[in-house]
This record gives sequence, C-alpha cells and structure tokens, in this order.
Amino acid sequence: MAAKERVTIARIAAEAGVSAPTVSKVINGRPEVAPETRRRVEGLLHKHGYRRRVGQAEEPAGLVDLVFAEIESPWAMELIRGAEAAAHEAEASVVISVLHTHAGPGRDWLERIAARRTDGVVIVASRLSETVRSQLSARALPFVVVDPEGEPAAGVVSVGATNWSGGLAATRHLVELGHRRIGMISGPPDMLCSQARIDGYRAALETAGIASDPTLVRRGTFLVDSGRTHGTALLTMEDPPTAIFAGSDLQAFGVLDAARRLGLRVPEDLSVVGFDDLPLAHSAWPPLTTVRQPLGDMAAHAVRTVLTMRRGENPDARRVELATDLVVRDSTAPPRGEG
Amino acid sequence: MAAKERVTIARIAAEAGVSAPTVSKVINGRPEVAPETRRRVEGLLHKHGYRRRVGQAEEPAGLVDLVFAEIESPWAMELIRGAEAAAHEAEASVVISVLHTHAGPGRDWLERIAARRTDGVVIVASRLSETVRSQLSARALPFVVVDPEGEPAAGVVSVGATNWSGGLAATRHLVELGHRRIGMISGPPDMLCSQARIDGYRAALETAGIASDPTLVRRGTFLVDSGRTHGTALLTMEDPPTAIFAGSDLQAFGVLDAARRLGLRVPEDLSVVGFDDLPLAHSAWPPLTTVRQPLGDMAAHAVRTVLTMRRGENPDARRVELATDLVVRDSTAPPRGEG
Repeated sequence: MAAKERVTIARIAAEAGVSAPTVSKVINGRPEVAPETRRRVEGLLHKHGYRRRVGQAEEPAGLVDLVFAEIESPWAMELIRGAEAAAHEAEASVVISVLHTHAGPGRDWLERIAARRTDGVVIVASRLSETVRSQLSARALPFVVVDPEGEPAAGVVSVGATNWSGGLAATRHLVELGHRRIGMISGPPDMLCSQARIDGYRAALETAGIASDPTLVRRGTFLVDSGRTHGTALLTMEDPPTAIFAGSDLQAFGVLDAARRLGLRVPEDLSVVGFDDLPLAHSAWPPLTTVRQPLGDMAAHAVRTVLTMRRGENPDARRVELATDLVVRDSTAPPRGEG
Repeated sequence: MAAKERVTIARIAAEAGVSAPTVSKVINGRPEVAPETRRRVEGLLHKHGYRRRVGQAEEPAGLVDLVFAEIESPWAMELIRGAEAAAHEAEASVVISVLHTHAGPGRDWLERIAARRTDGVVIVASRLSETVRSQLSARALPFVVVDPEGEPAAGVVSVGATNWSGGLAATRHLVELGHRRIGMISGPPDMLCSQARIDGYRAALETAGIASDPTLVRRGTFLVDSGRTHGTALLTMEDPPTAIFAGSDLQAFGVLDAARRLGLRVPEDLSVVGFDDLPLAHSAWPPLTTVRQPLGDMAAHAVRTVLTMRRGENPDARRVELATDLVVRDSTAPPRGEG
C-alpha cells in the first residue's frame, strides 16, 4: 500500500476553523469541547484518515478493550481466554465490556472509554455503525471486529472462522453417512457467520445432488433454548429429518434434549452435529460431533492485530478467516435402515 | 470501628529516612526507586495502614481488576458477568487477568498493574501472600478475595457462598431419599470452599446417624475430568455408593459420564448432586440436581466493596457469605429397592 501523506493536527485545525489544542482535545476524548465542534473535527479526522504518528504517540496504555454484545455462552469464555493470553504476551491486559445489545457500541460506551486510556478495541459479533467507526478513528483508536454482523464496511479489519467450509464439512459428513433429509438450525440472520454456515450446508447438498428443502432450515439464537425449540419443530414435522446440523454446540445440546423428550435416541434415530467444539462438547451425551472453530486463536489474532495497528503499522490483512475442523465423535451415525 | 489517626506521607518519609516524593513514587508504583528503599517504604506503609485521603485521591480510573488463577470453567464466566454488571453500574470496566497458577499474583503482575491505574483488585480463588498484600496496601489499592484459598489473613475482606450449608443441604437431600452410602468428591484441599462443603456433608451424615466412611470422600480439581476419574474410582469400589455429591457441576458432568460408561443409569442406579448451578446444569441429561451458588452476585458484591473501599469508606463486613439453594431436578431419586 502506498504511504499516504500524514495528516497533521494543524491541517485538521485549519480546515475545521478551530485551534490545534481543540483538535487534540477531541482526539484524546476530553469533554470540554462543544458537541457541534466535536462532530465537525471528528468528521475531518475520519475523512482524512488521521493517525497518530508513532513518535508522538503516548506510552501504550497496556489495555485492550474486548467488547461483547452478550456473554451468556461458554463461547465467550473461549474468546476471553484467547484474548487474555495474547494480551499477556504483549504485557497488556484485557478490559471486558458487555453492551447488552447487538446494535453495537453507543455514545455511552465511547464516553466511558474516552475517559480512560486504551490501546485498541476488539468488537465481537456486533454491528459497528459509521458514527462509531468515525468516533474511534477520530480518537486514533484502532479496532478489529471478530465475527462481524453483516458485511463489514470497507477498510474495517475483521477476524472470523471459515464458516462456509465448516458448514460444508458438517453437511458432507452427514451426506456421506447416508442422510438425505438433513435439518439445519443457524444463528441470527444478520450475523455473517450464520449465513456462511447455511451456504456451506446448501453447497454440500447441491454437490451431492440433494434438493434443499427450505422448511428444513431454521434460524434462532446460538443458545440452548433455541436449539430445543427449533429441534422440536424439526423433529415433529410430518417428514422429519434424520440428521440435524446445529449452528452452535449449545444449540446442539438443545437438539439432544429435544430428541430425548421425544423418545429419540442419538445417534440411532437422529444424528446431530454442532459448531464450535466448546470444552463441554466431548462431555456431552453422546459426545458431540462438531465443527471446531479456533475461538481462542481468533481472539488472540484480533488482539495482536489491534496492537500492531496501535504501533502505527498496517495489519497483515483486512480479513482473516482461521480454519475450522470437523471433529467426529458419537452423535452421528448412518440413518436407520442404512449402514 | 474508631477512626485511626491518618498516617501522612511525610511521617512515612521521616520514619524511612527518605524524601516525601520517594514515598509518593512507591505509592504510585513508579520504577525509579531502589529495591531496598521500596521494600522499606512498602513495609512502613503497610504497617501503618496507609490509605490515600479521599480529598487527595486521584480521579477514579474507572477500572477494577478481576484476577483469576485459571479461567477454564464456565464458572469463571458467571463471575465475569456479575463483576462486569456491577462495574458497569458504577461506570467502570473490568480488567481480566489470568495468573495460570494458584500460587497468587507475583511481582510480575504487580509491576504490570502498577504501570497503569486501577481502582481496586478482586482476586478469585487464589493465595494472597503477605508480600502481595503489603504491596497492594503500599499502593493504596483496595482488594477483596472471592473464594479464598485457606483462611484469609486478618483484615482481608472476602466474599464466598454458604458452602457448609450447601454441602449440608445436598447431603440431607440424599439422606432423605433413603441413601446411606453417599460418596463425595470435593475440590482442592487448600480451597476454603472445598473444606466447608465436606464439613457440611459430614454434618448431614452425622445428624442422620450415619457413620462417615473416609474411603467415600475424594478430592480432585473442580473440572469434568476429575469428576470422571474420581467417579469411576468410587463406582468401582467393592461396596460402591448409591449416590455421589460432586463439588461442582463440571465434576458432576464427569460423574454422569463415568456412570454411563459403567452402564449405570442416573437416577435409577445412581443419584448425583452437583454444586454451582451453571446455566448448563438444567440442560444436562438428566437435568442436574445441584446446589446453586450466586456466583454473579458474589463477584458483583466484591466489585462494589472494592469501589466502596476506593472511596475511603469501610466495607460493610470483613467476610460475607451469600446464600446457596438446593435445586432439585432429575438426577436424584431413592436408591434401588427403596421408594
């Protein structure tokens, strides 16, 4: 990438018609700037892609913010573990924020992190509005998105897993066992990873010459209850599936529970595949066949990338997808009458 | 408590034979003090119970450090959720550190938190040496211990659950169902909570006039593998127990797995009780009877207490135990031949 001419504070100040110290105040998130001025300066900083010079940067804060929409699942624990390990290696610590909404960080959260120092922000499974992006840029705060909601905007650095390949591998495994009616439960429709898993599922069916039946595809949240609800719905259809590919291990646990309540044995009457390979997947009954995604590595990569950007260097890539692996355990088998 | 005369920096400086700015440097964790001088000043600050005056305190950092020995279990997730919620309410954020040892924080970690600001430290399930306590005191950093290892030292503020009552309730439930040979698996012997649960178990047996058999009590870690190992050992005894009280839900999941591998049905052939009531306990198969401990509330209480101390106020109590509740689900039933 060709080096762009550095935008100076003086130039932003001149263009905004304010003093250089006022621009500095906006960059450092100080409160004593009129809202209208702040907006104008933030807009210009963002437009010109302002970044602190390495030489003039403050000492690192030794903190990376890890921002979750929710932390209800052991899935979040795996991300925290990976982020903490990578931060520790870089002599930094991880600050946890929970937004309690998938709508992304708001003014509120921005004000709070502006009031202290941080080296950068890793945002998990959340929307990231143009406003928030511009406010983070204006404060010269690097950010990386893990499992973005929707297609990330141009220039946004993001990390995920190979969700499409994971969906393909899970479904192909079921097809190879002889299943023809395969149900799928995925996550929220606006999550990029949900859509990629469904597309991988469809691709595997298509390759095998199996027409995909839209009534077999359901979307919920990634939690246990959702798996139980949608699993029950699929298993009580007139022509139920003989296998279900769930969008997460927790959903798969819910499907296992739905099957038990309906008197179905897994894997004899129903095969189940999960996604994630949480530590509990191999303690489930039966031990769960699942698609392992390297959650810890994803978070670690995001933290290292944000710290690289903090040093004024460019990240290796705008979008990184870490490999998934199918882990075959005991919850999958040929359908009855086969194998 | 009678108000103690405030110890000033000047007095510490005079007693240590150094300048007041040197004492300030030690308090603020600045590196440019000779190790010998630092130790002497820290010792005096600790001895005199130095605390910053509210008036002279810096602005709050808006950060509370939550320090874990390990974060391998969804148990840690519950603590993080509670801590984050309480910090959020106080307009602060939680910093996560993982020590990867139960030996407590070392110099390394102290140097790191000294290099940035924090309002206080919540230490989970770790030892806290006299040295670390004195270093935290010297920096005027309030700290609270959650689930202390061993009996906490005089003056250390700690939060836990009513582990003894929990152990009593779990065991009484099994006795009331008609069980006489009840196995127990607990956590590491040096954790206060492990010992309290065993004592509650013994008290329930004694009250019921059942002699306690030491071969039925085993100690492991709180993780799944440990439950599987010790569960297998108990169930393959010559005279195996008809019920097992596990020290954690994860251990109980391991016992469920051990039972399945041995061809035992739960609860028909074996009753199992866990401890914690993690979100996954009710999705286990069978849904797990367990002792609920309010992990989120414990962490929230610890965070609020540390912030209270940060404001120069005294905590409500030196030791708080939050109530546990027995949650009866489907993993317990009368022993065979009874009920």
